[in-house]
Order: sequence, then structure tokens, then C-alpha cells
Amino acid sequence: MPRHVVLAYSGGLDTSWCIPHLINEGYDVTTATVDVGGLDEAARYDLESRALILGAKAHHIVDARQLFYDKTVRFLIAGNVRRGGVYPLCVGAERTVQAMESARISVELGADAVAHGCTAAGNDQVRFDTALRAINPDLTVIAPIRDLMPTRTQQVADLEALGLPVPSHGAAYSVNSGLWGVTIGGSETKSSDGHLPESAWQRTKGALQAAKPDRTLVIGFEKGHPVSMDGKNMEPVDLIEALDVIAASYGIGRGIHLGDTVLGLKGRVAFEAPAATVLIDAHRELEKLVLTGRQQQAKDSVARQYGDWLHEGHALDPAVRDLEALLHSSQARVTGEVELTLRTGGFFVEGVRSPYSLLAASGSVYGEEAKDYSARDAAGFARIVGMPSVLAARAGKHGDA
Amino acid sequence: MPRHVVLAYSGGLDTSWCIPHLINEGYDVTTATVDVGGLDEAARYDLESRALILGAKAHHIVDARQLFYDKTVRFLIAGNVRRGGVYPLCVGAERTVQAMESARISVELGADAVAHGCTAAGNDQVRFDTALRAINPDLTVIAPIRDLMPTRTQQVADLEALGLPVPSHGAAYSVNSGLWGVTIGGSETKSSDGHLPESAWQRTKGALQAAKPDRTLVIGFEKGHPVSMDGKNMEPVDLIEALDVIAASYGIGRGIHLGDTVLGLKGRVAFEAPAATVLIDAHRELEKLVLTGRQQQAKDSVARQYGDWLHEGHALDPAVRDLEALLHSSQARVTGEVELTLRTGGFFVEGVRSPYSLLAASGSVYGEEAKDYSARDAAGFARIVGMPSVLAARAGKHGDA
Amino acid sequence: MPRHVVLAYSGGLDTSWCIPHLINEGYDVTTATVDVGGLDEAARYDLESRALILGAKAHHIVDARQLFYDKTVRFLIAGNVRRGGVYPLCVGAERTVQAMESARISVELGADAVAHGCTAAGNDQVRFDTALRAINPDLTVIAPIRDLMPTRTQQVADLEALGLPVPSHGAAYSVNSGLWGVTIGGSETKSSDGHLPESAWQRTKGALQAAKPDRTLVIGFEKGHPVSMDGKNMEPVDLIEALDVIAASYGIGRGIHLGDTVLGLKGRVAFEAPAATVLIDAHRELEKLVLTGRQQQAKDSVARQYGDWLHEGHALDPAVRDLEALLHSSQARVTGEVELTLRTGGFFVEGVRSPYSLLAASGSVYGEEAKDYSARDAAGFARIVGMPSVLAARAGKHGDA
Amino acid sequence: MPRHVVLAYSGGLDTSWCIPHLINEGYDVTTATVDVGGLDEAARYDLESRALILGAKAHHIVDARQLFYDKTVRFLIAGNVRRGGVYPLCVGAERTVQAMESARISVELGADAVAHGCTAAGNDQVRFDTALRAINPDLTVIAPIRDLMPTRTQQVADLEALGLPVPSHGAAYSVNSGLWGVTIGGSETKSSDGHLPESAWQRTKGALQAAKPDRTLVIGFEKGHPVSMDGKNMEPVDLIEALDVIAASYGIGRGIHLGDTVLGLKGRVAFEAPAATVLIDAHRELEKLVLTGRQQQAKDSVARQYGDWLHEGHALDPAVRDLEALLHSSQARVTGEVELTLRTGGFFVEGVRSPYSLLAASGSVYGEEAKDYSARDAAGFARIVGMPSVLAARAGKHGDA
Repeated sequence: MPRHVVLAYSGGLDTSWCIPHLINEGYDVTTATVDVGGLDEAARYDLESRALILGAKAHHIVDARQLFYDKTVRFLIAGNVRRGGVYPLCVGAERTVQAMESARISVELGADAVAHGCTAAGNDQVRFDTALRAINPDLTVIAPIRDLMPTRTQQVADLEALGLPVPSHGAAYSVNSGLWGVTIGGSETKSSDGHLPESAWQRTKGALQAAKPDRTLVIGFEKGHPVSMDGKNMEPVDLIEALDVIAASYGIGRGIHLGDTVLGLKGRVAFEAPAATVLIDAHRELEKLVLTGRQQQAKDSVARQYGDWLHEGHALDPAVRDLEALLHSSQARVTGEVELTLRTGGFFVEGVRSPYSLLAASGSVYGEEAKDYSARDAAGFARIVGMPSVLAARAGKHGDA
Repeated sequence: MPRHVVLAYSGGLDTSWCIPHLINEGYDVTTATVDVGGLDEAARYDLESRALILGAKAHHIVDARQLFYDKTVRFLIAGNVRRGGVYPLCVGAERTVQAMESARISVELGADAVAHGCTAAGNDQVRFDTALRAINPDLTVIAPIRDLMPTRTQQVADLEALGLPVPSHGAAYSVNSGLWGVTIGGSETKSSDGHLPESAWQRTKGALQAAKPDRTLVIGFEKGHPVSMDGKNMEPVDLIEALDVIAASYGIGRGIHLGDTVLGLKGRVAFEAPAATVLIDAHRELEKLVLTGRQQQAKDSVARQYGDWLHEGHALDPAVRDLEALLHSSQARVTGEVELTLRTGGFFVEGVRSPYSLLAASGSVYGEEAKDYSARDAAGFARIVGMPSVLAARAGKHGDA
Repeated sequence: MPRHVVLAYSGGLDTSWCIPHLINEGYDVTTATVDVGGLDEAARYDLESRALILGAKAHHIVDARQLFYDKTVRFLIAGNVRRGGVYPLCVGAERTVQAMESARISVELGADAVAHGCTAAGNDQVRFDTALRAINPDLTVIAPIRDLMPTRTQQVADLEALGLPVPSHGAAYSVNSGLWGVTIGGSETKSSDGHLPESAWQRTKGALQAAKPDRTLVIGFEKGHPVSMDGKNMEPVDLIEALDVIAASYGIGRGIHLGDTVLGLKGRVAFEAPAATVLIDAHRELEKLVLTGRQQQAKDSVARQYGDWLHEGHALDPAVRDLEALLHSSQARVTGEVELTLRTGGFFVEGVRSPYSLLAASGSVYGEEAKDYSARDAAGFARIVGMPSVLAARAGKHGDA
Repeated sequence: MPRHVVLAYSGGLDTSWCIPHLINEGYDVTTATVDVGGLDEAARYDLESRALILGAKAHHIVDARQLFYDKTVRFLIAGNVRRGGVYPLCVGAERTVQAMESARISVELGADAVAHGCTAAGNDQVRFDTALRAINPDLTVIAPIRDLMPTRTQQVADLEALGLPVPSHGAAYSVNSGLWGVTIGGSETKSSDGHLPESAWQRTKGALQAAKPDRTLVIGFEKGHPVSMDGKNMEPVDLIEALDVIAASYGIGRGIHLGDTVLGLKGRVAFEAPAATVLIDAHRELEKLVLTGRQQQAKDSVARQYGDWLHEGHALDPAVRDLEALLHSSQARVTGEVELTLRTGGFFVEGVRSPYSLLAASGSVYGEEAKDYSARDAAGFARIVGMPSVLAARAGKHGDA
């Protein structure tokens, strides 16, 4: 009886080549596409057709956008996570969810193995391998592209030899699209100083050249979740998708990130994350109104850790659950509205309001009038809070004498 | 014999009122203006004239821009410091330098006391008091505005009663300008959702409405210092001033920061930091090319601390010297060029290059080809690096059984 | 009608003097003693008698040991918190609970104010003031000892003049005893190098001179709570009290801590925390078996913060709730047993066991045999994990050329 | 012409087997023993003889104790580094120094490769591989034991077949001894709850059973370096060696550490670090007297990182240099004396003194008298420092309404 493998299938050349390869290795192949955003009806139909033509016994498509939001995106917002100060983890965060769903399907189908199409050169192999093994330690994980390293030419030749359709390939840019953004790699991103041409951008193409009038936008949050836009209540996933279109039309959210890969090399990638860029900034500004300074300090160190561990494929280490517990606790009062102005090429957070405002909780006005304490209190505070510097200055004199 | 006080003098209503007040208290008053950027020849002359007319025995002006750069700005760049993710510490960082120079002058003149014009409602009282006492623990520090809390009306009346000139006051916005940026407070910043009108901005006024053609700009760094612009070598202070004008003309560097004051209240302030905004981003992107991931991680936690402590008036705590030692060490290879495109309302870091490139040090291409290790190496790495998640999954099964 | 004040009452000279003082200021005084451990029946009776004789209208005693455990001690254990590497926060942690209960009583009685007997020289004033105001922002807080600074001589004279009993005072050592330990201050702790005489120790007096045979002890934990001793199930509070007696008899838990006070000065205090010392070490060793390395890393940074903020009186900042959420999450698998050997002057953690053992989850033996991965995997891991150092070495050569 | 390899040689079975193995592979073998403490004259002679008999062309012995101190131990002291709260990194820290010296010798001799005898199951392979490649990226690294996994039985048989002497092997405990301590692994450390028998301990064997009179010891530090014992000036390396003998005779410094290996598994090891244990505690207590609270906070986070990165083999990542810069800066005033009492099974830090004392710099006495500020100052400080908790309490009421 042939063994049964579930293949995480994206429809590209690599995973397409894997289908006949795995059949040739003696497997029945079920393909699974875990959609974390970015697939429309036509694309889904196309994926299924291609998988079956290539020899898959069955194809499963999972709409994992809500799961992706619940498991990860909500914490990326809560933590205002941007790797290297810019990159909102558009892609890395998705992989664990895709691995989790692939593993779940393999269990439900009683499959013997899970296969993925990651290469040896990227981060995703680590994320897939780790997640698959952590979810099901007994699972066999197969990574034909990494382990056999077939060239593109060879893959095309192999498919043609079998009379199978060859997916479009050889595109100048490698594009990865999901709910939280899109990444773009190409010849320009292989060096540290190449410029991406305008035509290579996906969601914001041409937006900077086609100026639009400024626009006001109000985002509402409840306990850290984005729940309304311009006063209209929306589910977070719907809000993200709608906001992405609007912000992209202003050319918002472009960036190029030069980062540290999981394997210790430097890697450079362009990205567009219109909704993520706006939401993180809006959320962070609202937090400044409702969280104490210590809360922000506690969150920030944890959030950096959270982003790093997600990026590095440790999403299933229990430590990540512990960080999420802190992030969740911190959002109890992150409720209110953020007003933004979108303009071509950028946006500006005009203001925030919340029933939990710590600014309104004080009768004082910064720099003008102190109602919560007296001038005498302030003088006492200033004297005492500076004591360590003063003592160190005194001790320095004695010590040097 | 009258006692002698050195008054840190800004020329505003508060410090102007202090001169006759201190004379009335029995002091000879020497005024000292410590310029950390923003004063032209005319402004300097004007300050001196006014101080003398108000009764000062002598006026000292110190050009402290270079000192400010050497003591602080270089570390703000090295640390990519932005409070709350946005605010480049335009103002707080200046105060310690001003206090240090005021204290130095007082020692040179053999003065008995130093006075400052800070109010009870702001952060600066803490920074001045702490720095003055740390530099000279025996110094008497006088803060008449904080301790007596004269109203503006009363200050004007007092000066008029003495037949003294009254400085312009009652402006709608309180503006604080220096090398690293300008802050703006007004009625709109007292609430969390007020919008600053276009007319209130100082350096970028009208820039967003007057679109200019995009412009390429190349900033060169050497060991973390900005040392050239478009290929022309410049001293860091000169570069900052020149860049500020250019970036401001594109409307770059505006923000509104809602932060935690030293005294535990929330405070909101608008700011414009055109040069700081560009330099920090450019520097950070260059660092990504030449620093290892661990170096960036080490720096980031220290830099946050550095910004917080500077903000809170602890610049003279020896701990800040220790953090500076790490930041200094980290800059040994931060040498190279950053290419930017400025466009109205924003800028984009197009690319970076450096002789110390860690990208070029590897023969691999991220996502495409791994030359520094084999596919087999990668498979081994992926297996081992995920062990903790896998063991935790196994232990969970046993533990729950 | 006289106003009504609730006085946090310890029975010492300071709070005893406060009773007639507050009556004289026009208050009806209700005394409240919040017992966080250390009071037996006789002591409680004695406290009540004295309060009433001194003029209190009523006396309340609250057994807050369980509350103290639930609100604080459990997190001190979960975080393995020791300030400065040694001091288990014996005292500071108690104050917030005492302030909370005092405030609660004041609300229940409809009192107008709460008074405490803290001095200007110590940390407790900050903890009491902050907690009382945070629990009830409208509460009037009175601190007669800090604000009037009566000398001991004057306090005695005042009580004698009123014909009131004078509590024992003038003891050579100031002792503060509770569930989590005892602190001892005296003339020797005022300098940095004074030695406490044997007679000054409270719980371990003479134990080091009276050698006892070694003893094995097994502590059981469940989700981070200490729940059994030598196989016998116990409530955490009872276990702490019983363990304290045993460990004290071996002279365990002594220390002298030289720390940073809330007010920025250095302070030195001797302490004895027999149970805390044993439990924290035992708990930490069990955690090493069941938590991943990342979990320990996440916990450790948060725990340091937790201890600092508790020490500094910020127990009611919501940030502390956020840290507790992480600590709580981390304890889900901290279940198992710890075997110790107690010997005179110390103890040794012999071993730990748990159903969630991550050691048992692996078939490998450290240093001997690797069953979870192959030699080839290890070689690949070693090559890749060292890439950043290797790239930095290469880049250094290029950069310096 | 045969290729030339430098073999890091310890004299044990593994590295002994490597000599004929490498010769058989076509290499000329030079053995190098890098002594980081623990080898006496006889042992050194014995090592050389054995290497030559086994076929080495030449043997090099390097006394690397001073280098080890300069490169690493001084920072382990400066950082008070103890992994998991207990383990002073006795062994891991040595490996990089050994790799560095082996690489240096290979360069001086113009060798083609460096070989080490690490297994696949331990941490040292990562440390050796990484350090060797980072020092000389062109170097060939050979790890025959890891890559071929010969069993002990096979190794013995191979040597016997060649008529070569077989080193003592099959000892019940694997012992690793150096300047900073000794580690001991055996069957008991393979489980989490095995007890090491008294006979297995190396430096403290029997010490707990043979009670000695208490002894006072005074350690002097200068800028963080241990420089005197009982008033006698000593070089740090000599002091460590002398102190180790004394402290070991009191049974000080034993521990069992259950830690996270570099490869993600749990590993347990017993250790004895008499000198390290005493010096770290003594140093830490002196720091509390001379460093501000912020300095200690800055150091502690960096020191944890330092220990982790050293343990994990990243000693040559430039990030470690950056951390060392901070640690070095922090030691400028760590000068003074620490008085300890040694007693069987433990020691007690009785007191510390320093010309840079921050305790003496203040006229105040903790808990008793505040001379650096007034009662009114303290009341003001207490009010203001608690503002965030108070505002959060107020905002909670509004927000929940």
C-alpha cells in the first residue's frame, strides 16, 4: 500500500515539481493550501485544478485568515512588532500557521508524512520543520527541494518530460502575499544597494505618482483589537483587508528590510504592508494614552522577543505563550479611537481618545500647570530623584582623592 | 557684599522676570545662554542686550553645539534613539549640556548659586536640578518660577512696574528649538486629540502643500558619525544643520508625541526633527548591513535605556557612561554610505553599502542559494534548532497523561 | 463631628505616639493591624489592648497571610525573586498588602483618612502613600512621623505627659518580621562593613554553633505553588511557616543586603529568610527541568523588573499585573518534586523530578549520546549557528583592507 | 607531501585515538595542549610523552591561564556571571581560548587543518567549530569523533591493534578541570534526580565531613580585578588558584546544574568552583557599595547575555566585544575590600569598604535619618513617584463607568 503524504502546496514551480516527485517516491499525494490571505476565488480554483492535473489524489484548501489573526496577528498588533524598526513580519509569521494546518490535515487523513517545498537558502525550512515536528513529534517531514536541490531548469525539464503543465516561472520577482503584507525579492534585493523598480511593487504600484487628496481615517480599537473604521464596526480580518486597499492607494507601507536570517546570514527583501503599517502606528499611539510608562516598558522588551522568536521559527516554544500572556494582559484598556490623515506617501496620527485616558485622569497640563502636586512636591521630587547622580559625584571626589 | 548668581537665560518671559527678581533678592546676576543650536547672530545680540537692560551685570553666550554633539547627539545616533518609537529626544537631551555649561561658568566666576527658570509642571526642572547638583554638589540651585509660581500676568505687571521691557509673550505656541529638533506646545497639545494647525509648525510650515520634485541624497557615515552628504565631507554639526534645512523643505520629520513625563503624568508635544529623523533611519539601515544580529540586539536594549535615562534627567549617572561605552564599541564598523530618496512628506532608504558588509561577506543569496553551508547542514540545523519546541511537545504529552 | 482616621498600627513607639497625636488633631482613631505573618495570639491580644489604652476607639486585626501569598508571595516564588542576587524582598512586598487592607477598612468604616507611621528616611512611606492613593484616590493620607519628625525622646515625653504607657523602645535592633522573612537593622548595618553580632539574629540565633545531623527534605510543587513537604500535602502558607522553622534550625537563610533605597540612597539591612531561601532555590531548579531555555530567559528579565517595581512601591501600577500574567503562564508545568539535603549553614539541591521533564523527553544523554539528531545534523548545526562570527571575521578583513 | 594538522590534545581516549587516525588519513600530526589551569609539571610531561608515542611529530603546550583570565575570566567576574543562578561557566568559557590558541599555532606552523576531539552530543563541538572558523575562515576543521562516532570499545581495539598505549578510560566520571572550576559527569547526572557520591567530587572531597574552624578572609579588588588576599597583593591568576585551595578545603562551591545545552537539549552536570563562587559573591557585594542602582541594572542584563553567548559558542561575535565594553566601563570604581567568613559548607560576606562608597557619600542613615533631603522633600517625592498608579486607578474608574 502506498504511503500517504500531505504536501503544503503553493502552486509555484517548487511545490508543483514535488507532486510527481513524491508520487515517484511511492507516495499518494494530498495537496493542502493554507490561505493566510491573498487568494481570491479564481486563484483557489486554479490551485486545485493544477494540483489534480499534476497527480494529487485530493486537494484541500483552508481559509486560515481568522486563525492567523487569532494566533498571531493580534499579538503582532498588541506588541507593535516591527523587526529592525520597520518590517512587520509579513511572511515569517504565516508559516507556523500553515505548518499547523498542514499537520492537522495529515492527522485527520492519517497520513504518514508531510512535505514542504522550502529551499535550503531561506528561513521557511526552519519554521516548517520545527512546527511540524512540534505539533506531531512522530511525523515524517520531507523537504525535497532543500534536500535534493533541483535547479529550476531541471524542474521544468522533469515536468515537461512527464507531459505535465509547467507553472509560470522565471518571473523576475519572487512574491509572497498574505493578510499582513507582501514580500518581494529580486535581483535588486540581492545586493545591499539595489533599488526596486516601480513596476516590481505589488500593492502600491504607481500610487506615489498618482497623487490623491488627503483623507481622514478613524480606526477604533477594543482591548487592542482593531474593530471599527470611520465609525463602522468590522471584524479585524475584514478591517485589515479593507484598510490595506485604502492605504495601498496612498502608497503607504513600502519598505526594504535588510535583516538577519534564521541561518545567520544577511538577507534583504522589499515589502509592502499598508494595513499593518497604519495599524501598528495607530495602536501604538493609542497605547501611549492608556498605558502607564511601565506598561509600555514591559511590553516593548517582550514584543521584541516575540517578533524575534516568531521570525526564527520558535512559535511553538511554550515561551511564546508566556509572552502572549503578558501582551494579552496589557491590552485590557487599549480601547479608543485614533484619527489619522492619509496623504500620498505617508500618514500622520492626528490624535487619539479613550475612556481610559491617563492624560484626562490628571488635572495638570504638561509644562503649564501642575494640579496633582504642588511646586514644593516637585522640588522635593527633583532633589530626591537625582540623588544617585549626586552621590556618585561626591563619591568620585572622595575616591579620587 | 551681594551674592552672585548665574542665571540660565533663554530670553523668554520667565527668565527675564527672574533677573530683577534675583536682584531684588540681593544677588548680582550674570546671565548665561548656552546655545545648543537655533540661535543666529541677531538672536544672540538681542539676548545679550535684553539681559543687560533687565539688570544683568554681565552676559555669557556659549556655543555648545559641538559639545552637545560630542556628549549626546552622537550617542542618540549610535543608539537610533526615538522615544515611544517616534520622538528623537529633541529637547530633553539638551538640558544637561545647558546645566553643565551653566555650572562651569558659575565655577569660573566663583558664583554662589545657579538659577534656572523651569516651572513645576515640566521635566526640565528635574534635569537642571539633578545636573547642577551632580556637577557641583555644593552649589545652591534657585528655581524662582517653580517655587514662587508667578503667573504670566503678574510677571508682566512686575516688569512694567519696574519700567523694564517685557519680552514678547502670550504667543499661542511654546516653541523650543535646538540642533536636534524643535518642540511645539499649544492648546491643541493639551488634549490627546487636538490637531496642530499648519501655521503652528516651525521648520516644515507649508512644505506639504508645496510639492517639490523628488531628490536623491547620499549620507556617509564613519564609525557611526555622519561625515558626508552627497559625497562632500562635512563636520557632523554642519551636516546636521544643512540636512535639517533640506529635509524640512520636504516636510520631513513632523510628529506628535504623547509621552510619560519625568513626573509621572502624560504630556503631549508636537515636534519637527527633519535631520534627526533622516539620520537615525539612515544610520539604522547601515547598521543592519555591518552589525551582527547579536550586536543589534545588544544595542537596542541599551539604547532604549539610554533614551529613557536621558529623558528622565539621569545623564550624569555613571550608568549612562557605561551604556555609552557599549554604544561606542558597537560603532567600530558603522562606516559606509546610505542612499535616500526625499519626497514631499517622507523619504525612502533606497540602499546601503559598506566595506564591512556582512551581506557581501557571504557567498549565499538569501532565499536562492546557500554557498556557506550545504543542504545537509541546513537540514541538521533545522532539526536541532527546533529541539526545545519538540521536547516541550513530547513532555506535554507525558505530563498530561 | 470629629473626623475619623484609620491608623495602620504596629504597636511600636512611632505608631503608638500617633494615636494621641491624631486624637489631639481632632480625629477619632481606629487602629488596624494587618498581619502578614509573625503575630501569635498573645501578640495580637497585646496589640489590641495597647491600642485601646492609647485611645483608639476600635482596633481591627486582619490575618492577611493568605492574601499576601495570593497577591505577592506566589509571584516572588514564580519569579525566583532575589534583589541584588540575595535578598528575597522579605519586607517591601508586605507593605502594599498592608496598605490595601488599611484602605479597605477605611472604606468599610467610612473613614476620612488613613494614617501610617513611616519615617522620611525609609522606603515604606513611598509604598504606603502610593498604594493608599491608588486604591482610593480621594483618600487623605496622613504621615505624622515623616512630616513632623518627632524624636524618640520627644515621643516618650509626650506619652508620659499624657500618662499613657510607653511601648518598649530603644532596642539596639529594629526588627521587621513577616511570612517571607525578617529584617534586622542596627548600628552595625549603618556602615558597609559592620558585622551583626550573633545575638542580634532572630530566627537562626545560635543555629550555626549548634550543629545538627544532615536532613533530607522533599518539597513538592504544583503549577509553581509549594504544596507538599516530605510527601505530606500542605497549604502554601502552612508549608512556608513549617519550613521556616526547620530551615532556621540549620541556620539557613541569613544575609546582609546593601541595596538601593526607593529614595536613591544606599541602605544596608540584615535579613533571615529561611523558608524563602530554600523555596526559591528549589523552585528554580525544578523550573530548569520543565521550562525551555527561552521560557527561563523570558521569565528572568520580567522577574527582575517585578522585584524592582514591588520594592519601589509600584505594586499597583497595571504593569505589575502584566508581568504577573507572564509569570503565571510560565508556571503551567512547574509541577514535581525537589529533593534537598539540609546541613548546618546551608543546603544542597540533590535532584528534581517531574512528569513534564524535558530531560526525559529526549532520548539523548548530554555529552555521551545524541539520539534526537545525527552526528551529521550536529555538524550542520555547528556550521550554521556560527555563521555570524565567521561573516564578521571575513568582513573585518575586507573592511580593514 | 603529507598535509599537516594541529590536533587540540587533552590526553584522553578520544584525542589519543585521533592521532593514529589522522596519520592514517595522510596527515602529519602536531598535538597542542592549551592549558587553562589544572595541569602540573608531571601532567604536562606525561601529555607530551604520550602524544609523541602515539605518533605526533611534535607537541606544543601553551600556558593560557593569563590569556584565559584576560580574555574571559575578568569579564565573568565583572558580570558576576552564573548561568541559571548557580553555574559559573567553569568549562564553556575555556573552549574559545583553546580554539584560539590552536588556530594560532596552526597559522604559525603553516598547518592545513585543525582537529578537535569533541563528540556530537556536547556543546564543545559548536564552540570549537565556530571559534576555529571565525579566527581563520579558510581553515579546514576536522572532528573525527563527532563525524565517525567511534565507540570506546572500538577506539581501544584500534589502539591495541596498532600496538599503541591505551590511555586510562572507562572511569566512572568524566572530569573537566580548569582555572575557573571543574565539571563532573557520571551516571548520576544522566537523570534529573541522581545524587553524586562523595567519592566523585574532585576538589572538595570529604571537606564537609572534616569540619574546620571558621576563618576570616579579606579579598581586595581594584577596578573589578581581584588583587589581594588578606592584605597581600597577588596577580589575579595566582589569587584564584590560591583561593581555590582554601575555599575547597571548606567544601565551598559545589553545585549541580541542569541547563540548556547549545543543541537545545537539557544536560546536567556537577561542578566545583570554590574560587569562582567566593569571588563572584564578594565582587557583587562590593559593587553594591560603589555602583549606582542604574549601573547594576545596566550590567545585570548585559551580563546574562554575556554568559549565554559565551556558553553558546559566540565568543567571537563582535557583540561580545560590545558587552565587554560596558562591563569594563562599569568597573572603574569597583575598588575596595570584602571581608568574608569561611565556614564548613559555606561562607558569609560580612562587609565591604571602598573609597568610592556611595553609602558614605550620603549623610543619611537608611530608615533613621535623612540628611540629604527634608521630610517635605520626601513627601513630595512619594506623591509624585506614585502618580502613574494613581492616574491608572482614576482612569479605571472612568473607563469602566
